[in-house]
Amino acid sequence: MDIATRVWNHKWKIDPIVRSLIDTDFYKLLMCQSVFRNHRDTNVTFSLINRSSEVPLAKLIDEGELREQLDHIRSLSLTRGESTWLRGNTFYGKRQMFRPDFMKWFETLQLPAYHLERVGDQYELTFEGKWPEVMLWEIPALAVLMELRGRAVLHDMGKFELQVLYARAATKLWEKVEHLRQVPDLKIADFGTRRRHSFLWQDWCVQAMLEGLGKNFTGTSNCLIAKNRDLEAIGTNAHELPMVYAALAKDDAALAQAPYDVLADWHEEHSGNLRMILPDTYGTDGFLKHAPDWLAGWTGIRIDSGDPAAGAETAIRWWQDRGEDPTKKLVIFSDGLDEQKIVELYHQFTGRVRVSFGWGTLLTNDFRGLVPNDALAPFSLVCKAVSANGNPTVKLSDNPNKAMGPAEEIARYKRVFGVGEQVAQKVVV
Amino acid sequence: MDIATRVWNHKWKIDPIVRSLIDTDFYKLLMCQSVFRNHRDTNVTFSLINRSSEVPLAKLIDEGELREQLDHIRSLSLTRGESTWLRGNTFYGKRQMFRPDFMKWFETLQLPAYHLERVGDQYELTFEGKWPEVMLWEIPALAVLMELRGRAVLHDMGKFELQVLYARAATKLWEKVEHLRQVPDLKIADFGTRRRHSFLWQDWCVQAMLEGLGKNFTGTSNCLIAKNRDLEAIGTNAHELPMVYAALAKDDAALAQAPYDVLADWHEEHSGNLRMILPDTYGTDGFLKHAPDWLAGWTGIRIDSGDPAAGAETAIRWWQDRGEDPTKKLVIFSDGLDEQKIVELYHQFTGRVRVSFGWGTLLTNDFRGLVPNDALAPFSLVCKAVSANGNPTVKLSDNPNKAMGPAEEIARYKRVFGVGEQVAQKVVV
Repeated sequence: MDIATRVWNHKWKIDPIVRSLIDTDFYKLLMCQSVFRNHRDTNVTFSLINRSSEVPLAKLIDEGELREQLDHIRSLSLTRGESTWLRGNTFYGKRQMFRPDFMKWFETLQLPAYHLERVGDQYELTFEGKWPEVMLWEIPALAVLMELRGRAVLHDMGKFELQVLYARAATKLWEKVEHLRQVPDLKIADFGTRRRHSFLWQDWCVQAMLEGLGKNFTGTSNCLIAKNRDLEAIGTNAHELPMVYAALAKDDAALAQAPYDVLADWHEEHSGNLRMILPDTYGTDGFLKHAPDWLAGWTGIRIDSGDPAAGAETAIRWWQDRGEDPTKKLVIFSDGLDEQKIVELYHQFTGRVRVSFGWGTLLTNDFRGLVPNDALAPFSLVCKAVSANGNPTVKLSDNPNKAMGPAEEIARYKRVFGVGEQVAQKVVV
Repeated sequence: MDIATRVWNHKWKIDPIVRSLIDTDFYKLLMCQSVFRNHRDTNVTFSLINRSSEVPLAKLIDEGELREQLDHIRSLSLTRGESTWLRGNTFYGKRQMFRPDFMKWFETLQLPAYHLERVGDQYELTFEGKWPEVMLWEIPALAVLMELRGRAVLHDMGKFELQVLYARAATKLWEKVEHLRQVPDLKIADFGTRRRHSFLWQDWCVQAMLEGLGKNFTGTSNCLIAKNRDLEAIGTNAHELPMVYAALAKDDAALAQAPYDVLADWHEEHSGNLRMILPDTYGTDGFLKHAPDWLAGWTGIRIDSGDPAAGAETAIRWWQDRGEDPTKKLVIFSDGLDEQKIVELYHQFTGRVRVSFGWGTLLTNDFRGLVPNDALAPFSLVCKAVSANGNPTVKLSDNPNKAMGPAEEIARYKRVFGVGEQVAQKVVV
């Protein structure tokens, strides 16, 4: 490192964790554009939820440091180079994915205020405001909390102890890469931004995947890394769309229709590999059963909760019932994957459908077993839309352990969407 | 790295492996000063000997590259800072360890010519000249060959593959350090210069030992690293002294006396912890049996061949026979150690003698099992004085696998020194 760089680094009051508004998942920007077009005045509240209550975030992380990091994110705006990349780059084979009116809005955006309060050993962290603005808090807020927790654990370690810690983590990842490179024609992308160990570590993981897997590594969900490393930015849409659409529904009939309204809007905007169904928000079985026929013409399905093999089998039966050829369809697995499961699912479904993987936390944050008390193991932290225009949101998913929302609303949604017994799956990350 | 440093690096025609005349073992300089005083006009030939004939050095290492590295070493001379350090630093608690006449000579020294020839898959590399000059070739020549062999193996590896290789090696070393830090009052030094993986790697290992073991890490044999890292430079004397003294002996009576002549000269020059007996050149048993009484007053013994526990027991019995208290004596183990053996010997002898360790190749070059065909495993390469004033040298040691010299001379030495049956030990490094 040269002297000037070092001096420049000393000028930071803090060591910022998130240094760019595009250090976020690509699908956030796609969804943001869609929301900006269709629901820009909807008021939404996002809230941090630590599903791993055994991790006492407020004891580990200093409130002042957390505020500094969040304040720093609020000071960020899109740089000229970032704007040029979003405007000029090709995404999913398409030029001008981001429309001029959206870009003009995004170029002047600063993230809205946050509300932070310590409650017991946890933090209450919420973001209230216009949907297209607050939704952009989710990924950086999670990344900040994960990294501050890591920094707290690493704080007292020696220089060489730290080097060896990273050496061990690197070796662990590389052993997974060596396993995955045995698999011919694997298609796998990095989905690990939100619960990464740190930005630099995610960047390292992405480069290791690229060297180890070559063209089988299809890209990263992280826009900043995609830009810096000249990779494909990957991602389509998430549960927040049906959750907010559902919360805005006026009655049960509108509620039942809401998930399809989301995809109708999406259908208008996107084609090809961006037409991916995320069917599990209110139960995959009911969603597919009542889906309109045009949805069976979409490119594929992303399996993000429940038993992944069972989800893929359900999708295959559904395509067959609707007269579609499953071997032409894409199935993206993205829930709690590790390399063993990836290899297993690959062999189970290759030939029957086109298989792809979005590998998240256990790619970018597998420090399990590397420090005493497993204090660096990733944990289940999420940041979700919890209300829209004053109505609470609900998520059911295919795993009751991932359900969220007020109990009476959960009961109503289960009734409206005809969700029966569900198999509980352990939520690792 | 700043731009200027990078440009400066590009100016090198080669990437030099040895960049300093004091990138060598401390005991070489101590012995060199002794030789400079007592035998400066003796003609000695040093020769490279690859005891691991399965490693085809001439196939792995390009002759032109080897010559460039050796030529670069011949271009080196002592820098002002190095000279200041040797003249001004305290070694083994003593100021002005290196006398002004020796320093004056050393400051103008350049290493003499080398003779290199490819014979089959091996190199013949010899150094002929005045003893105090040629003896300084041993360590850099070995380091160059070890590192060029490593570079040949690493040449086609990718950037991240290399990072993970070093990550694995670092983890491997750190696990040894974690094991050794369990041992209270361990005394251990780095003796790993000659067969190190590379200079940078040795430097890393030394720093890791320092962080991991604190004051239990007593220093390094490498003068350059000791200087740069402000550590103790460690080492006393080696087999080359008795080997050359013995080769110069006029008859069998003088030969039998030669090993003691070495130590008599040493006794005049050095005191305290530098008075370490290296008893195994022509068999430890006979050496101790016939040793003069003043030698029992020396500080300790270094065990460098044969079964180390047996060697230590022999020393303890000898001290007891001579009326010395073994618990006041220092035993330094330095032959083919790894951390398991270190812990075992520590527990076996602590309390009975003062125990210390000189840890060599498996500290600074344990890349075993990290690449296919174990192509980075350290191997047994030495560079020895093979003749003095035209007479061949002989080494017997306590391990017949380490014996060297012409067969008829070995037979003569065995007769003169009364060496009987010896137990063969596998030579790892």
